[in-house]
Amino acid sequence: MALLEDLKWRYATKKYDPTKKVAQEDVDKIIEAARLAPTSSGMQQFRVIVITDQELKNKIVPIAMEQQIVADCSHLLVFAAWDRYTEERIDKIYNYTTDERGLPRGRFKSYTDKLRALYLTQTAEENFIHTARQAYIGLGLAIAQAAELKVDSTPMEGFISEELDELLGLQSKGLKSVLLLPIGYRDEENDWLVNMKKVRNPKDNFIINY
Amino acid sequence: MALLEDLKWRYATKKYDPTKKVAQEDVDKIIEAARLAPTSSGMQQFRVIVITDQELKNKIVPIAMEQQIVADCSHLLVFAAWDRYTEERIDKIYNYTTDERGLPRGRFKSYTDKLRALYLTQTAEENFIHTARQAYIGLGLAIAQAAELKVDSTPMEGFISEELDELLGLQSKGLKSVLLLPIGYRDEENDWLVNMKKVRNPKDNFIINY
Repeated sequence: MALLEDLKWRYATKKYDPTKKVAQEDVDKIIEAARLAPTSSGMQQFRVIVITDQELKNKIVPIAMEQQIVADCSHLLVFAAWDRYTEERIDKIYNYTTDERGLPRGRFKSYTDKLRALYLTQTAEENFIHTARQAYIGLGLAIAQAAELKVDSTPMEGFISEELDELLGLQSKGLKSVLLLPIGYRDEENDWLVNMKKVRNPKDNFIINY
Repeated sequence: MALLEDLKWRYATKKYDPTKKVAQEDVDKIIEAARLAPTSSGMQQFRVIVITDQELKNKIVPIAMEQQIVADCSHLLVFAAWDRYTEERIDKIYNYTTDERGLPRGRFKSYTDKLRALYLTQTAEENFIHTARQAYIGLGLAIAQAAELKVDSTPMEGFISEELDELLGLQSKGLKSVLLLPIGYRDEENDWLVNMKKVRNPKDNFIINY
């Protein structure tokens, strides 16, 4: 029941104690959970950007609807997805995979041909709808890992991604920001949400049996 | 390290032993992890459909690119997201939340007004881009919970969602299928992937530090 207990413990922290920093060892584990996340066809269409520089975090506050948590948190993680699929990206992943497995390159050619036919004929916008989804798997697992370590976190979509991409120079890396995840330690006395009941849809409304 | 060990243990199972069934107690925990998943503004924009009926699972094989795992698995989970936002859906969630927390209805009105202004002015297609993303958080946590229980699972996007929606009558429920997650127990002798090395992008390629 470890994971379920961790998921019940966590909540979207609304106020961080800016004096408390997450140990590098724990940050590493949180990112590692995102790195191990399953993704569509194993392509890992997202990256994690780790921001500790206070000045840079401060600059993100106005981009993130004036939410102070991006400045007060210990580390600000940005999940950014591929802006589009390219032949090079698909090949690079599959060449690396076959190399790592000691298989001949091209071992998965019939499969990668299908990926090419599917994604390279789409627009960049259609590609990004798909790549961005994968970042959410990584986000969920990073949050779970943080909770296991009793590190607080706050999943956030409320920011102007174009402005953040500009600030972080993501376009030149072929990435677009999708999600923010401040991590740190709650300021219990000043967090309005911390003592409120966690509410979820009742099971009979969440599950449909066939 | 529990979660990281579980994530290393799991793999996208390619062949299930159709004679082995997952205990109901474990199925419940896997779905519970998805139910506890954080979602955008706490709206839980997705549902989990649980299919055990063999005839129905068989009917999904041709819809899922002839992948036999949807028939051979113990339980087939379908993650389906809201087809669009509506005023009723937003209100229902927030009324339930305030009721459960013993707060007056309308306590979050300034926030729900923002959600309305944002989502109700979008097209259904734009809405679904957002709701579908949330299902991926639930998927990730369900996979992690399955791994904790040593239950195998296979995240799948390769199916014709319109046909599955039709088969399951999802349109009348205001849902559209996003993901499949067969769960069960691997057929180790016949699974080509089981003994292959798990490959992920090296850390220095996955993480960008600022």
